[in-house]
Amino acid sequence: MKLYDGGKAPNPRRVRIFLAEKGIEVPMVPVDMGALEHRSAEIAKRNPLQRLPLLELDDGTILTESIAICRYFEELHPEPALFGKGALNRALIEMWQRRLELHLYLPVGYAFRHIHPAMQGWEVPQIPEWGEANKPKVLEFLGVMDKELADREFAAGDEFSVADITGLIALDFMKPARITIPEELQNVRNWHERLKSRPSAAA
Amino acid sequence: MKLYDGGKAPNPRRVRIFLAEKGIEVPMVPVDMGALEHRSAEIAKRNPLQRLPLLELDDGTILTESIAICRYFEELHPEPALFGKGALNRALIEMWQRRLELHLYLPVGYAFRHIHPAMQGWEVPQIPEWGEANKPKVLEFLGVMDKELADREFAAGDEFSVADITGLIALDFMKPARITIPEELQNVRNWHERLKSRPSAAA
Repeated sequence: MKLYDGGKAPNPRRVRIFLAEKGIEVPMVPVDMGALEHRSAEIAKRNPLQRLPLLELDDGTILTESIAICRYFEELHPEPALFGKGALNRALIEMWQRRLELHLYLPVGYAFRHIHPAMQGWEVPQIPEWGEANKPKVLEFLGVMDKELADREFAAGDEFSVADITGLIALDFMKPARITIPEELQNVRNWHERLKSRPSAAA
Repeated sequence: MKLYDGGKAPNPRRVRIFLAEKGIEVPMVPVDMGALEHRSAEIAKRNPLQRLPLLELDDGTILTESIAICRYFEELHPEPALFGKGALNRALIEMWQRRLELHLYLPVGYAFRHIHPAMQGWEVPQIPEWGEANKPKVLEFLGVMDKELADREFAAGDEFSVADITGLIALDFMKPARITIPEELQNVRNWHERLKSRPSAAA
């Protein structure tokens, strides 16, 4: 198999962090998203949605969507379990993965793509009003998250999970989106520090 | 356990269809989203994000996020397997569930929430330009989907899965969003008919 990687963009990084946490090495094909190489014919024939990352298996089967790729590796290498163990734990991790994706990562992404000048050729039409409308959504969710993190270490409980990986890429993505974690949300700030200090964060 | 249901909105329906396909009956607590009851204190204390559906277990544990709730029931009642069996099949179903959610359901929802007059009090600010920008995204994805469905019955293969449930709620949601499946996308149209004709679609 080989992983068509997309450099520093959040979704490719999400899979690399996951692999680092699992201790799995996969041959990588670098793709320069800055040069719009993910919109090339080579990628489009593998993923008509022209998005990365993309996992190509030896028989030519293509897997896209970062979380689907992560789940594939979870099935192949169950330990450490990053999608959880047992019905309730798995469901709670899925819940937090989705909450962090839909209420943090997605609005941060919209703020970035619809406001940042570098995104003008990527997001058409760029609608700054929509970008701005997402900033309070981010802050509101972080307020909820701060209360949740008052009595636990990680997003879905006391164990690190794939939900934390989504949390990390979203929190780091706030920098180019020019949104700051409010000073008073100390639990979110501490959580971010815990995630950033793991060796996998360098992936 | 009891399921706080939200009536005809797509996410509550997604869970009801899933339960119908599994043949599972769960006690329901109806919540009138039209009367904004999902923003009441009773719901907020269970889900600070004030969204439905919401599953409350007998010990008071709360599960939100429709797909997380579905996965919980999949773990408790594995047959029929709607999230797949085996590493690759599970990953492909997750891939299609996410593609249909992120590239069909989400943009249809934005078109509805940012254009429909009835959504003015729900989506603040309502940005019609953003709603309109999502319509071509929907049509572009349906074009990709039509090619995919040329040689298979269902979203992720020849077996019905949770990805098809997301497809159904998204396709049905196109009506209030005032987007029509183009006449020439016959594979998508046939797929929609197949899904609508299943008994679970009435859930």
